[in-house]
This record gives sequence, structure tokens and C-alpha cells, in this order.
Amino acid sequence: MSYNYGGQQGYGGGGYAPPGGAPPGYAGQPGGFSAGPPAGPPPGADPQLWNWFTAVDTDRSGQISVYELEKALINGDWTPFDLDTVKMLMSIFDTDRSGTIGYNEFAGLWKYIKDWQNVFRHFDRDRSGTIDGGELQDALRQFGFNLSPQLFRLVERKYDINQATGPRGPGGRSPGVTFDRFVRCCVVIKQLTESFQRLDTDRDGWIQLNYEQFLQTVLSLP
Amino acid sequence: MSYNYGGQQGYGGGGYAPPGGAPPGYAGQPGGFSAGPPAGPPPGADPQLWNWFTAVDTDRSGQISVYELEKALINGDWTPFDLDTVKMLMSIFDTDRSGTIGYNEFAGLWKYIKDWQNVFRHFDRDRSGTIDGGELQDALRQFGFNLSPQLFRLVERKYDINQATGPRGPGGRSPGVTFDRFVRCCVVIKQLTESFQRLDTDRDGWIQLNYEQFLQTVLSLP
Repeated sequence: MSYNYGGQQGYGGGGYAPPGGAPPGYAGQPGGFSAGPPAGPPPGADPQLWNWFTAVDTDRSGQISVYELEKALINGDWTPFDLDTVKMLMSIFDTDRSGTIGYNEFAGLWKYIKDWQNVFRHFDRDRSGTIDGGELQDALRQFGFNLSPQLFRLVERKYDINQATGPRGPGGRSPGVTFDRFVRCCVVIKQLTESFQRLDTDRDGWIQLNYEQFLQTVLSLP
Repeated sequence: MSYNYGGQQGYGGGGYAPPGGAPPGYAGQPGGFSAGPPAGPPPGADPQLWNWFTAVDTDRSGQISVYELEKALINGDWTPFDLDTVKMLMSIFDTDRSGTIGYNEFAGLWKYIKDWQNVFRHFDRDRSGTIDGGELQDALRQFGFNLSPQLFRLVERKYDINQATGPRGPGGRSPGVTFDRFVRCCVVIKQLTESFQRLDTDRDGWIQLNYEQFLQTVLSLP
């Protein structure tokens, strides 16, 4: 089911795959839309999805900005999504690099979030609304990332806001990893593993990097 | 003044150094404080600083939690600090690993933020309250990080919330890099460069990493 990335074994995907980041093809908005507010949904649009799109598009520009998206995305514990996760979603789904999300791009983003919500619910076995240490370890293992205990503790400390930052204070956040940080965590580890595979051309488990490549790889992460 | 980290030159600090992360020694709270709310400032405490400390410590526990700190820290454009920067500050200054910040730890944190504010004001030449592309490049150069144009664009895109995410929408954030993300950006690049230096034991400009070391290095970043 799972491959040991921490050891000398080969690389490969696990049995349970995180939702893919491949966005759908962007058909483009009809030209008339760019001049003013859209008159209605594009032909063939899902009415419910169009409803959601217009709810998020608060300035009625026909395009969703990073600020509109930031305000629309809420975790199960009512905290807003962290900005780096919002940026990550924008960069995956703004396929025409316009800086905003049109209806067709939104359809892809919507499906992606729904897929991740299903994954999140699957691993949130105690239905607490956040992913605790054991649940996170399960998820990463099933995705094929068999991290060492030391690495796993590092991942947990990085993405669980309560780890190494004390118990929940009054008005504080829930313990465990929230939905936004869970998605970012899985995408970062997936991307790091793929970068490593790409750089490990002779498959000996070691990569060679210069300073430029090293920073390039790290700064490209969400 | 500055060293070229992107090329084959040797490593070394630049002329203008980012504020050091070395926290002051933690003297510890008098034992009596842990049982209930503090009766007053520790002997020799700066009255103004004690004032700030008690203002941030909203639950009067005598200790500042990550949530209290998160609520207290505001950028020049009134946006709250992003959570990863708050976590970074906690991890630097919670020297006794209690999960909270006592008064003596707070004194170190306070000085660190003030030092960074001075650096930020120094580089924010147009007094816009945020750091634009040219100002960021200046700052990184003066810190001794001579990044290639490609790397620099990547840094800008990662830390400036407006880069590659479209123009400022209604109720949106100011263009440029906010204070919180500027500090995190500089700390990340400093830490990456130091990691590279440490791993480049033969100083040939190349490092060798296995998967475990690679993830360890990246996931330790703020």
C-alpha cells in the first residue's frame, strides 16, 4: 500500500492519492463579460455552482479576486483560511494567469475543495473537525509518505497551530490541524517528494543541489 | 558590502544584518506567579513594557499564549499578522518551551519586533507602509543575499500577497509585502542560506541530501 520514502526504497505513489492539482481546461469568458458585470451564467453552467460563484464574487465583477476568495473560505472551526493556502489555491486554479478566478476556473477550484473535504472527513475519524496527530500520520501513510517519527513530529509541529505553542487559550483555535493547513501540508509534502524524485535522476536516494536550485525548490512550495 | 550567494563565491554575512534571533536569557517567573494572576511587575521591569505585556495578556494568566499574541500583532495596514509568522515568533522566544511567553521572554520578543520595525522603515523608502519589489531587493542585497532575478521574482511572488494574485480588490490588502511577511521572508532566506552553508562542508557550492535531510531542512523553516 505505501512506499517508504524515508529509506532506500524506490519512489512511487501510494494507494490513496491526494486530490490532483490538475485544473480543468479554461474555456475563457465570452468577451462581453470583461467590460461589465456578467448578465448571467455561461451556457451549460450548473445553477447551484453559479449561485456559489456569484455569492463569492461580492463586487459583481464576474471574477473572483484573492480577497473575495479569502473571505469566502472558512474552516470547520470557523477560522478563516490562512493566506498561504488561499494563495496556493489561486495559483493552482488561475490557469490563465489573469490574477483572478473566472467561472470555469471556479468550477475546478470548487471540485478540488470538495474532493479535499471528503479526504479530510475520511481521516477525521473522531469527527472533531480537525486532524489530530494519529489521523495526520494515517493520511500521510495512505498517501504513500512513510515519514520517520522525527520528520512526522516536525510536520505536526509545523501544521498544527497548537503544537509547541501551548494549550488552547480563551477564544483560541481548536486543537489539531485545520482543513486549510491539512490541504497545504499534504500538497507541500507531495510537491517536496516529487521535487526530490525529479532531482534524484540516478535513483540512489541522494540529490545534489547548488544554492540557486535549493532556494528555487523551497521557495516554489506553497 | 554584499556576497553573491547565487554564484560560486564564498559565503559570508552582508554589510547590513537582519536582527538576530538570539533571545535573551530566561530568568523565569517567581514561583508564586504560576498559581494565579501576577500581582505586579517583576523587580526591575520596565514600566512601559510591563504595561504592554499586561495589555497583550488578556486572560491575566501572567503568560502570553499564541492566540493572545496573534490578536496583539497588527501590520501597518491594519491586517493581522499571518499565523506562520506568529508561530515563528513564539518558537524563537519561547525559550523554556512552555508553550507561552513570560514577561522576560516578552522583553526579548518586543525588542526583536522593534528592531525589525526599524529595518522595515529603513527599507520602506516611499513610506507606503509596505515593501515593494525594489525595496525588497534592496533589503535582501544589503543583508548579503544577492539572488538571481529569477529567484528574486519567486521570493516576491511568495511573500507579496498581491503578486500573481491580481490587483487590490475592494476591502483588499495594500500592495507590497506587509511587515509580518517581510520578517518571515528575511528569516526564511537567512535560514535557508545558513542550512546550505552548513551542508556544503567542502565549500564547492553544491550540497548532497537524502530524502530525510531534504524534508527535515525544508519543514524546519518558518
